[in-house]
Amino acid sequence: MARITPLSGFPEWLPDGRVVEQHVLDVLRRTFELHGFAGIETRAVEPLDQLLRKGETSKEVYVLDRLQAEDTGSRSAEKQLGLHFDLTVPFARYVLENAGRLAFPFKRFQIQKVWRGERPQDGRFREFAQADIDVVGAGELPYHYEVELPLVMAEALGALRDVGVPAVRVLVNNRKVAEGFYRGLGIEDVEGVLRQIDKLDKIGPERVAELLVAEQGASPQQAGACLDLAAISGTDVGVIDRVHALADQHGARTELLETGLGELSALIEAASTRAPGVVVADLKIARGLDYYTGSVYETLLVGHEELGSICSGGRYDTLASDGKNTYPGVGLSIGVSRLVSRLLSAGLLTATRGVPTAVLVAVSDEESRASSDAVAAALRERGIPTDVAPSAAKFGKQIKYADRRGIPFVWFPGAQHQVKDIRSGDQVEADPATWQPPADDLWPRVVPAAG
Amino acid sequence: MARITPLSGFPEWLPDGRVVEQHVLDVLRRTFELHGFAGIETRAVEPLDQLLRKGETSKEVYVLDRLQAEDTGSRSAEKQLGLHFDLTVPFARYVLENAGRLAFPFKRFQIQKVWRGERPQDGRFREFAQADIDVVGAGELPYHYEVELPLVMAEALGALRDVGVPAVRVLVNNRKVAEGFYRGLGIEDVEGVLRQIDKLDKIGPERVAELLVAEQGASPQQAGACLDLAAISGTDVGVIDRVHALADQHGARTELLETGLGELSALIEAASTRAPGVVVADLKIARGLDYYTGSVYETLLVGHEELGSICSGGRYDTLASDGKNTYPGVGLSIGVSRLVSRLLSAGLLTATRGVPTAVLVAVSDEESRASSDAVAAALRERGIPTDVAPSAAKFGKQIKYADRRGIPFVWFPGAQHQVKDIRSGDQVEADPATWQPPADDLWPRVVPAAG
Repeated sequence: MARITPLSGFPEWLPDGRVVEQHVLDVLRRTFELHGFAGIETRAVEPLDQLLRKGETSKEVYVLDRLQAEDTGSRSAEKQLGLHFDLTVPFARYVLENAGRLAFPFKRFQIQKVWRGERPQDGRFREFAQADIDVVGAGELPYHYEVELPLVMAEALGALRDVGVPAVRVLVNNRKVAEGFYRGLGIEDVEGVLRQIDKLDKIGPERVAELLVAEQGASPQQAGACLDLAAISGTDVGVIDRVHALADQHGARTELLETGLGELSALIEAASTRAPGVVVADLKIARGLDYYTGSVYETLLVGHEELGSICSGGRYDTLASDGKNTYPGVGLSIGVSRLVSRLLSAGLLTATRGVPTAVLVAVSDEESRASSDAVAAALRERGIPTDVAPSAAKFGKQIKYADRRGIPFVWFPGAQHQVKDIRSGDQVEADPATWQPPADDLWPRVVPAAG
Repeated sequence: MARITPLSGFPEWLPDGRVVEQHVLDVLRRTFELHGFAGIETRAVEPLDQLLRKGETSKEVYVLDRLQAEDTGSRSAEKQLGLHFDLTVPFARYVLENAGRLAFPFKRFQIQKVWRGERPQDGRFREFAQADIDVVGAGELPYHYEVELPLVMAEALGALRDVGVPAVRVLVNNRKVAEGFYRGLGIEDVEGVLRQIDKLDKIGPERVAELLVAEQGASPQQAGACLDLAAISGTDVGVIDRVHALADQHGARTELLETGLGELSALIEAASTRAPGVVVADLKIARGLDYYTGSVYETLLVGHEELGSICSGGRYDTLASDGKNTYPGVGLSIGVSRLVSRLLSAGLLTATRGVPTAVLVAVSDEESRASSDAVAAALRERGIPTDVAPSAAKFGKQIKYADRRGIPFVWFPGAQHQVKDIRSGDQVEADPATWQPPADDLWPRVVPAAG
């Protein structure tokens, strides 16, 4: 067999890396569940025509073919399928398919892999895990969910601080503010302006101003005002005053702007109590390519801002629609693989070991393996992850087996059992029915990297 | 949008079905971890040439194409990829790719979706979850792992008995017994005979005998002896005596047969202590299409035998090989979707609710939503999954919101907080800092269906 090499864009972790990823996933799941989100999974595939509805994402889709779809007759009779590129399109379809069997507002979390045929680069994968939360209503969805959802994500990511995940900044904006302001300025092509504003971090304000004039037909004054709005940010309601002042300066107050500022203000205020210092109003957040209609969110990892957003989302007035009913929604999605990949590559944290095992039971000779198995069964019965030595080698070799895997304890069965902490060398008498390892040693833990 | 219909072969669960599936996955994971298996995941795709190595599975593979692989030049430069159809091929590749960074024997569990382009039918899906455990050695792997692994699976499935999963029978056989016996009879085409024996349950002994004569060139006496061997089964070592007697009758004792019987005997003996009544030696188990070299396993759900095996596997002398080193392995794979689908469709068990939420905090008016949020935060802080009412509707409507979701408690904030068990109607004063729901109500549980 030829030498095996990794596939670019399809990350895999060694067992200790997977301990880190699993811990991240477990903490996210628990936080989502504590907030009442029901976990669901959707199939990995959707009909291609559904995946291409947005148009802009078509280049990213992996299309499926059965290798031996024998005759073209049966093949054309089947819908063409593609792998989902996010969890929002499948969720919208799931809501429509099951609308009669779900209770609305419906709060769900969903943690699954998604696939995009993009060119792989740092932090951009072709296969990656996402962790999404969404609330979807039938016909209507109260604004307060736009306040709650980013705070749930802030709490979920905050619950990872103690294992070494950096702090996050949740950047929030409101589409109504931008649209209300632009319309007050007399700009018609709101979508076009948002698309240019979205490029600010990449190409800078001067180039964006040029594009606004050249492509959106804005006057230099209008372009300048758009950039002035995008420059406003802050963690308190002073932000609102500054937008008001800017709007007054340009005579750009509109009803839509006031609605948007009212919503943004409510979000900043709630956040200042529930997640002080985490949420920042940032008027340049545009999320240009998505069909958001209210709040929009991006999340930066402090000290790793160049990684881009690790958790984004917003409010859709029409997450899904079956012609008769419309389902508005608000949600955010964590790029779990992007986050975990950075945590591991930057050496920010580490797993205390790559195996679950806390205790290795030694084997004196193969004839007595059954008694070693019995000790292991007794320990597992009490929730202690336990392995038995692969062979009745010299005890030194069995201890080395434990050492190579980071297993902290080796158990020696006998008329009087003994257990050795192989880190300190301490060896004590012990009873399989009662002995307990220190809580910190029971399961592998994720801890901040030393230094 | 056209009416949305499910895709045949791609099962999805409603939230309460997902509670059941998640519970099954959590129990399996915990059992595997207690036995020292490290969890890993592999990418969903493998190079097509790797997936097709076995040949027989080629018809099942889904091949991937990027929708806009613009020019044929760049496209042909990329390896053609397919979705994995099991977790064994990817694991073998993972072992070779990371051999220098893994400690052997390496015990891993892996729970992921797999895809097969088969015609969907009852219990056969195009996308389904598998839960695999394998142990792989470098160069060698002691026999005792062939005893342990089916017992770990029996324990994992047994840990689901109390939620209503039926008992299982693990059927075991050993390739060396069959091969040693067939060679003793003078049969050369061992693989061919195993393939026919594998059809016994489907077409019956008479038809298999005909095929053995017609296709493998066996004499009627040889065919009869093969069927006599396949008819032997039992839970104790009496099975070994019966095989010996049959071999003596045909003068078919070989060294390989004795080795195989020795191994099978050790497995039956260990199982009679560690999982009494669960493991059955069944000499007709052939697993004809796989490259097993020692023990083979299938698992039936008692009362649902027609569903076929829900957990199968065996010993490979060559799980993987890079030309220089060979990696023998033994493993089993649970068909989680097949199992869960049957549990749900047969109504064997049920989730106590489809949402994690134990408590809904009512909202008196939107102005006081913050105080309801504060109660919810206090409860969540102590690990109680809590939701807040979507709107300040009449309390009757808020109680209905809880009732529709199976949320057992509604909390009424106030100077003196009260909490109501909406099943009994009991309402008591309570403190958000100390109140605790009954343990059975804290999280959704999976319970045997009534009746």
